[in-house]
Amino acid sequence: MNAAKPLPAYLIQRYQGWKATTYSDNRAWYKRLATEGQRPRAMVVSCCDSRVHVTSIFGADQGEFFIHRNVANLVPPYEPDGDHHGTSAAVEYAVTALKVAHLIVLGHSQCGGVQGCLDMCSGNAPHLEETSSFVGRWMDILRPGYERVKAANKAEDQVRALEKESVIVSLENLMTFPFVKEAVDGNTLSLHGLWTDIGEGGLEYFEPKTRSFKPV
Amino acid sequence: MNAAKPLPAYLIQRYQGWKATTYSDNRAWYKRLATEGQRPRAMVVSCCDSRVHVTSIFGADQGEFFIHRNVANLVPPYEPDGDHHGTSAAVEYAVTALKVAHLIVLGHSQCGGVQGCLDMCSGNAPHLEETSSFVGRWMDILRPGYERVKAANKAEDQVRALEKESVIVSLENLMTFPFVKEAVDGNTLSLHGLWTDIGEGGLEYFEPKTRSFKPV
Amino acid sequence: MNAAKPLPAYLIQRYQGWKATTYSDNRAWYKRLATEGQRPRAMVVSCCDSRVHVTSIFGADQGEFFIHRNVANLVPPYEPDGDHHGTSAAVEYAVTALKVAHLIVLGHSQCGGVQGCLDMCSGNAPHLEETSSFVGRWMDILRPGYERVKAANKAEDQVRALEKESVIVSLENLMTFPFVKEAVDGNTLSLHGLWTDIGEGGLEYFEPKTRSFKPV
Amino acid sequence: MNAAKPLPAYLIQRYQGWKATTYSDNRAWYKRLATEGQRPRAMVVSCCDSRVHVTSIFGADQGEFFIHRNVANLVPPYEPDGDHHGTSAAVEYAVTALKVAHLIVLGHSQCGGVQGCLDMCSGNAPHLEETSSFVGRWMDILRPGYERVKAANKAEDQVRALEKESVIVSLENLMTFPFVKEAVDGNTLSLHGLWTDIGEGGLEYFEPKTRSFKPV
Repeated sequence: MNAAKPLPAYLIQRYQGWKATTYSDNRAWYKRLATEGQRPRAMVVSCCDSRVHVTSIFGADQGEFFIHRNVANLVPPYEPDGDHHGTSAAVEYAVTALKVAHLIVLGHSQCGGVQGCLDMCSGNAPHLEETSSFVGRWMDILRPGYERVKAANKAEDQVRALEKESVIVSLENLMTFPFVKEAVDGNTLSLHGLWTDIGEGGLEYFEPKTRSFKPV
Repeated sequence: MNAAKPLPAYLIQRYQGWKATTYSDNRAWYKRLATEGQRPRAMVVSCCDSRVHVTSIFGADQGEFFIHRNVANLVPPYEPDGDHHGTSAAVEYAVTALKVAHLIVLGHSQCGGVQGCLDMCSGNAPHLEETSSFVGRWMDILRPGYERVKAANKAEDQVRALEKESVIVSLENLMTFPFVKEAVDGNTLSLHGLWTDIGEGGLEYFEPKTRSFKPV
Repeated sequence: MNAAKPLPAYLIQRYQGWKATTYSDNRAWYKRLATEGQRPRAMVVSCCDSRVHVTSIFGADQGEFFIHRNVANLVPPYEPDGDHHGTSAAVEYAVTALKVAHLIVLGHSQCGGVQGCLDMCSGNAPHLEETSSFVGRWMDILRPGYERVKAANKAEDQVRALEKESVIVSLENLMTFPFVKEAVDGNTLSLHGLWTDIGEGGLEYFEPKTRSFKPV
Repeated sequence: MNAAKPLPAYLIQRYQGWKATTYSDNRAWYKRLATEGQRPRAMVVSCCDSRVHVTSIFGADQGEFFIHRNVANLVPPYEPDGDHHGTSAAVEYAVTALKVAHLIVLGHSQCGGVQGCLDMCSGNAPHLEETSSFVGRWMDILRPGYERVKAANKAEDQVRALEKESVIVSLENLMTFPFVKEAVDGNTLSLHGLWTDIGEGGLEYFEPKTRSFKPV
């Protein structure tokens, strides 16, 4: 591995500032976290998108949230086939090893992955349909959501609806994992669906009775 | 999907506080981020661990880092087989669509995934060797690192060495992706390996010449 | 006093959120509370335990409960010997200056102080028996409860019984304070004993006739 | 103990509402807290005053703060004399058993205990000087603060100054406890002094260099 380079200077400078301030002022807590291990109350499945910081929105402390971030905050269905499943591994670790009490799926507006899925499913992005497209094959997880969105929405409303389906599909898929279902049925885990509007700073939660999102 | 519940009240309260302060004070920037899209300088591959906040360590702004988080900050090898590959999709999106200039892999001390891999590879965690173990199959990615660690280290040094191998293996696997190699060779992307010590607040970077980590 | 440090940033952020929402929305009431002073209906003696929030359980408003919290919600016997007695001072202030109408002692399950008392009284915690152990000397207050518990319960039931004795002993000791007895006899103060189960969310009250706790 | 009465109906009603909503929605977390025990990051020493809710100001979760509340948020000096010392027991438990990383002393405006101390020390409250006055003997802890305040402030500024001295004196006394000093010196505990203005919603922190309070 010969390609790695040193860190850009501005990041080194910021790290040194953090070390002299935030780290220094909270050293006791960091040491305890290192010694005793993490004990997060919740797992969050969020998007990689650089505009969505779940720790900022919820004023989260170090040690509070176990956070998995992937494109479009998707959870695939349960498939124990021996392959590498990064999302399933993260969910398994959070639920069975860390025994988190909450599992929150956080979707958001202007999601590039969701837009790609909509383009692909409506026939406008042939490159995403190729076997070799990782983004396309990943967004296949959201196809069941697209079918529902297409049937029920006008074209101009479909992106917003599909962003929210990315949360619903993930919640549905989570329940196909035996250890998730068992924990939910046994009241040791609760699931939560959220969607945030980047520009407006809004936050909505999924209400299963009406199958809709409401402002918190 | 009938299992979803409303958000705990303390999180709603904190969100409303964020909306009235952080969001309100930065509304113009959030609106631009929503309208113009994200344009992150770097992608970070980090662990889900609740104790590692890359945005805190580097004082990162909204819009600055495209962040993928999975168990043990692993990137699998290039395998365009039509299956769901969440990590590969995130890397593909960052490099080909967002055209990030840096790709940073951030490992850390006390990693539960790495410890699990060590236990499994040394024969002490048979449950992780089962086909149905998502964590076990995910940590298989790190097996090449284990082989090197086993050969070169005493038992008590193996965990630390394997934590650092999780960064090196990911950097190696990244270079098996044609679009990553092309961008690195064309000088439009640079790779960086980092490892942070949770308790000490230390940060080290991977130096390819000596194949070792040095304090930044 | 040179050791004090600034507050961790996440707490400052949360405070600023509170200021901009909860405080801002209730400013008129906070200002009246500041100008006119507090006028709480009840005093609560509760445990320091981080898992017990009496204001949450009873939806309490600012200004509603005068709350003293110590290890194991204990009230010592009346001892006007000129020493510092924090609990007695709090009770005296609530009953004679604030003239609260109710005095509630709230015990709870999984109390570390009660467990320590049980260990100490049964000879399994010699360090708590030392003169220099503040926790041990504080838990001495509960020794009369231990004697009753030991006589009447099997070993596996003793912790639960002693948790409830921590409430009964405190109620008994309260009546040794002349100003408490006078207020109770004069019907200007009523005493209440409660015990809450953290995991089950249960709440029981002390019924003097049967000397037992019943679900509310 | 024959004096105890059942709970007022409005409190029973509120409890039942809490059980059906907050408890029900967070059952998984409450169960974990019961099973695994508490692991608070910080201890808070706050006043019994009904107008000061530290969990509200900081949006605190169940399990986050170990809270001791007494009159005027005072910590007495280290006195291992075998008597009951409720505050010292709470500090000992938090620092040596729970190993909290932060210890926060929170003072506030309009503190009745501080006003009583000022009246007593300036000769205007003879009843507080009696041996039998628990409030008076408790507020003796703050006398060293009164001496400093008297020397440096005009009469009309003395109450405010003494409210802040209640924080400083407590921080000073904390450092007389060997286990506190050892933890602070060993960087496993940090101390923090805060003062809040009830009517204005302000929050100030103690800065040791200038021995003054500054807005956070």
